[in-house]
Amino acid sequence: MTDTAVVPRTPLTVLGTGAMGTALARVWLAAGHEVTVWNRTAARAEPIAAEGATVAASAADAVAANRLVIVCLLDDASVGEALDGADLAGRDLVNLTTGTPAEGRARAAWAEERGARFLDAGIMAVPPMIGAPDSGGYVFYSGSPELFEEHRDTLGVPAGTRFVGADTGFAALHDVALLSAMSGMFAGITHAFALIRPEDIAPKDFAPLLADWLTAMAPAVHQTADRLESGDHTRNVVSSLAMQAAGVPTFLRTAEEQHVSPELLAPYLRLMERRVAQGHGEEDGTGMIELLDLRRGA
Amino acid sequence: MTDTAVVPRTPLTVLGTGAMGTALARVWLAAGHEVTVWNRTAARAEPIAAEGATVAASAADAVAANRLVIVCLLDDASVGEALDGADLAGRDLVNLTTGTPAEGRARAAWAEERGARFLDAGIMAVPPMIGAPDSGGYVFYSGSPELFEEHRDTLGVPAGTRFVGADTGFAALHDVALLSAMSGMFAGITHAFALIRPEDIAPKDFAPLLADWLTAMAPAVHQTADRLESGDHTRNVVSSLAMQAAGVPTFLRTAEEQHVSPELLAPYLRLMERRVAQGHGEEDGTGMIELLDLRRGA
Repeated sequence: MTDTAVVPRTPLTVLGTGAMGTALARVWLAAGHEVTVWNRTAARAEPIAAEGATVAASAADAVAANRLVIVCLLDDASVGEALDGADLAGRDLVNLTTGTPAEGRARAAWAEERGARFLDAGIMAVPPMIGAPDSGGYVFYSGSPELFEEHRDTLGVPAGTRFVGADTGFAALHDVALLSAMSGMFAGITHAFALIRPEDIAPKDFAPLLADWLTAMAPAVHQTADRLESGDHTRNVVSSLAMQAAGVPTFLRTAEEQHVSPELLAPYLRLMERRVAQGHGEEDGTGMIELLDLRRGA
Repeated sequence: MTDTAVVPRTPLTVLGTGAMGTALARVWLAAGHEVTVWNRTAARAEPIAAEGATVAASAADAVAANRLVIVCLLDDASVGEALDGADLAGRDLVNLTTGTPAEGRARAAWAEERGARFLDAGIMAVPPMIGAPDSGGYVFYSGSPELFEEHRDTLGVPAGTRFVGADTGFAALHDVALLSAMSGMFAGITHAFALIRPEDIAPKDFAPLLADWLTAMAPAVHQTADRLESGDHTRNVVSSLAMQAAGVPTFLRTAEEQHVSPELLAPYLRLMERRVAQGHGEEDGTGMIELLDLRRGA
């Protein structure tokens, strides 16, 4: 008898053995779970099979093997295709496939119609962060709180878990919102390195200044949240939009001097100028959030 | 006799008593420096006069009062105007006025022609961070290393100092580069809050997730620096541009679902797609820096 008999671990299925599915399956195997896998291109399941996973001949077989089914495929369309012929009745589907909030909600309805329970998820990690508790990686979950609680321990094996609501779309929404914010930060970083690149400044000397500055400024989101909750964009403003907008020409001229395209930076500066032109110069930057709302016709 | 007679502190002049100039003058006064100030609109110098500063009748008088002259005006043109009639011979000008690298270099040459020594500076702080050693605020300096060393202690009174090179333009370049990166981060934050805004998600619950995620991802700049120094954008890539580009439709569709304008996010995603289309899908995001270089005609 193995340890798995002494402390029974929930057996589970992983659909999709790309880099992320493989990383997840590996950690569950190492923790003593029986893992059945399936991948559309069977050869890509071989490495994890060598580590002890059972390879199912079809997605339907893989779904039939275990009640708990982790879905980690390319996109939502792949999920529909893979599960097309499977009997989902009585299954607990946990969908770690990247998608939009609406896709998560629609897939939940689709799965429930077929007799399955459904949790959507958004992975805030790259594969090397899976199974590395100190990496800072984690997974957002949304949908049935009961289903989440039932599998919480199992789901927590490969990465931290954060349940963000009964609305099935919220995991994807949190995922995309955080990754979108990160894209903005990376756009700013790309512009910053492009600015110093023509000069005799070592990137390794510049990087710590940049990391420290961004880390020091990131907590500004707490003031943003306070302002959004109060609806008051003008209270305790330290650097008003008008003051920030006064610096716009310096930003753009510096880019020009350094022969750097302003394409990543200009949209934010233009949005700031638009808000000031509308008479909101005394506001904090949170006022700009209003201008992105397409329902307001702003 | 006061303490200033026992431990003599360098007397100095501050040109410009806006929010930043006033904050600086206040900290120097509190530390025992004799401070002479001048402001174009004299009424704005009254608060700091009430705290002990001597108000000069003209910028020329203020410059004549002390060898060390701190310049903290609206923009470079204001510096030229204010100093137009002043005798700069033998003065040490430290220019904390926001400007571009080229403006810093040109103003240094202009000052040196008139017999002054010159340091350019870029303030990485808002006024409340001045005189608050734990605030994380500091000031970049560039130009003559000797001049910087001579006044280092005095300059270090209101905020930390970082000397970034003998090229007078480097303080402004570092300043604008870090503020540009921050603008990118704030653009991403603006988009992220706009995405969650239509939903029943409390901004105060979302903010800590966002702050933690950005803080965890900011150190990616060190890998960016390594790649720029090696010139190899493809080594040890965890999330390639091709993998990231595969997520672009999800980002844009989520914005559309949430009725959020993609204007802040799209330029970075488009640049990513352009780099992949050029055959660089296996690269890390650092490859995108190349595309911003207008001298390459990319």
